[in-house]
Amino acid sequence: MNQKSTIYDIAKKLNISAATVSRALNNNPKISEKTRKLVNDTANEMNYTQNRLALALKSGKSNNVGVLVPRIDRNFFSSVIRGIEECLYPEGYQVIICQTHDDENLEMQNIEALLNAQVDGILMSINGTTEKNDAINKILQKKVPLIFFDRKKNIDGVSSVTINDFDGGYQATQHLIDQGCKKIAHLAGDLSVEIYKDRCNGYKQALLDNGIKFNENYLIETISKVEQGEDSTKKLLNLKNPPDSIFSSSDFVALGAIQEIKKHNLHIPNDISIVGFSNEPFTKFMELSITTVDQSPVEMGKIAASVFLEQVNNSSNIEIHKKIVLPPKLLVRKSSLKN
Amino acid sequence: MNQKSTIYDIAKKLNISAATVSRALNNNPKISEKTRKLVNDTANEMNYTQNRLALALKSGKSNNVGVLVPRIDRNFFSSVIRGIEECLYPEGYQVIICQTHDDENLEMQNIEALLNAQVDGILMSINGTTEKNDAINKILQKKVPLIFFDRKKNIDGVSSVTINDFDGGYQATQHLIDQGCKKIAHLAGDLSVEIYKDRCNGYKQALLDNGIKFNENYLIETISKVEQGEDSTKKLLNLKNPPDSIFSSSDFVALGAIQEIKKHNLHIPNDISIVGFSNEPFTKFMELSITTVDQSPVEMGKIAASVFLEQVNNSSNIEIHKKIVLPPKLLVRKSSLKN
Repeated sequence: MNQKSTIYDIAKKLNISAATVSRALNNNPKISEKTRKLVNDTANEMNYTQNRLALALKSGKSNNVGVLVPRIDRNFFSSVIRGIEECLYPEGYQVIICQTHDDENLEMQNIEALLNAQVDGILMSINGTTEKNDAINKILQKKVPLIFFDRKKNIDGVSSVTINDFDGGYQATQHLIDQGCKKIAHLAGDLSVEIYKDRCNGYKQALLDNGIKFNENYLIETISKVEQGEDSTKKLLNLKNPPDSIFSSSDFVALGAIQEIKKHNLHIPNDISIVGFSNEPFTKFMELSITTVDQSPVEMGKIAASVFLEQVNNSSNIEIHKKIVLPPKLLVRKSSLKN
Repeated sequence: MNQKSTIYDIAKKLNISAATVSRALNNNPKISEKTRKLVNDTANEMNYTQNRLALALKSGKSNNVGVLVPRIDRNFFSSVIRGIEECLYPEGYQVIICQTHDDENLEMQNIEALLNAQVDGILMSINGTTEKNDAINKILQKKVPLIFFDRKKNIDGVSSVTINDFDGGYQATQHLIDQGCKKIAHLAGDLSVEIYKDRCNGYKQALLDNGIKFNENYLIETISKVEQGEDSTKKLLNLKNPPDSIFSSSDFVALGAIQEIKKHNLHIPNDISIVGFSNEPFTKFMELSITTVDQSPVEMGKIAASVFLEQVNNSSNIEIHKKIVLPPKLLVRKSSLKN
């Protein structure tokens, strides 16, 4: 049902070369008016529509930009995408989005899909699980501009826009210490992913700088889901010496922690204080609003897009590569502000 | 920087026809081994990579499916997309997503981007503002399978998967009446959009069936944003005869209504009961959980995708078109359950 006529079909029907068909369709002056009319009439008859893509194959420009994120249902990522769109739409680019669900195979297939869609560039936040660089190398081989945002790999020649996650973890932990907390647990993300490792290192450094000994029972790796926050918090509360506060690297995990703490009839923030990460909208709207770290996602998207524009519009031989690091912003709310 | 070599470049360099280059790259037996080797070596040298897309231009199949939604940052839409992916990934399709932001021009440009990316099908939820059918006709002209979900237009030959929005509006309103509410306001969506009109008609019918007169002061059109819920609720509370309950066609608007009602020191649900629509995750996690209507989005996505598969795998001349309507599910929570 989805068969499209091609220039090869038209060429066959008219018994002329595909190149002649192509030239006729592109109004090449070498082609006679008679042939041009014949080709155009046949093309219409055969339901052939010359598309921007066929032209893109020749010019190498599709005006589509691909964005690859782990998940679109996180406000952080959808906001970065909004920033990218706000920057690129006025420049005549369309944005097409794929999600990898933190799956290395899907990431590879999505990259192939985007490359096959002839995107002019790829802006991506890598998977936690991506160990090999095959997918990324594929982009670089094709000389398609690549920009990382948020979750990056350190690869020569690839620009990136991130926030200072170490500082985010440090600020969150320092804030809890300033509120009088001494037994601070950390619900980390996958520590093989740079952003989560950095947040965790910021947490540890803040403890160290305040003379608080790191307790390994207080560190649990989680996936950014509500249930994981519930399960991990149950473990923490069952410790002989339970923590007096939790810094979570994910707002969803922080939400799960709050649900679990309520079941134990403990008071937030007086018994246990909570800080999340990402400034998901629900953290603000909860009756018990959640202290969190804002990552300026719209700005991050705009900057990533403008780095892409610089690269793609760069007609010199000088390669432009940038590493841009934005500052995180701690937003103090009810979940950690003691009475 | 983003210039790609094409078969035309290779042809020019070797002074042979593009058709010969194409045949050589595709191992056509008509081409001598010597020419094939020459073409392949030159292609490598010129950094030419034959891509699936070029092949797609010939075969008419890219294995990419385009999904078009108003916004990705609504749980309803991201869940539909998850359902689509869960159905299509095992079949070897990749899913590429565009968002229209309820803008008719963006919708048109996104459709062009997807068609140029040679998608094998488009699954879309239309804009509220789309009056003309130009964009949709473009898809139909190209004979690309098109399936509507949630927000549809009634167009001959286009399949759709929706929920029974009339019934959703009816159930929500009947529930409030069952709780003893008599002065029920409705914060509607854009009433030129079918789903919102249907929800509103369900509301009106429930009033009628229960002998409650429709009060036009109790009906306000909104956009699905928290601030719109605050503003509209302020207007309702300032009426001489304010309502005792609100049915909102959007959870975000319901959330805004709750924020506003709290400012007036009124009790929810005893003074004013609230029902939203869509089952956004936050409605469950709020301390004052919000009664809402679930739309089975993952299931909707799976069904829409399977309708696409049926169409694309249909080798007969019989056209398959389906109108599938799913039942809504009322989820009763604290915001409307009186003590």
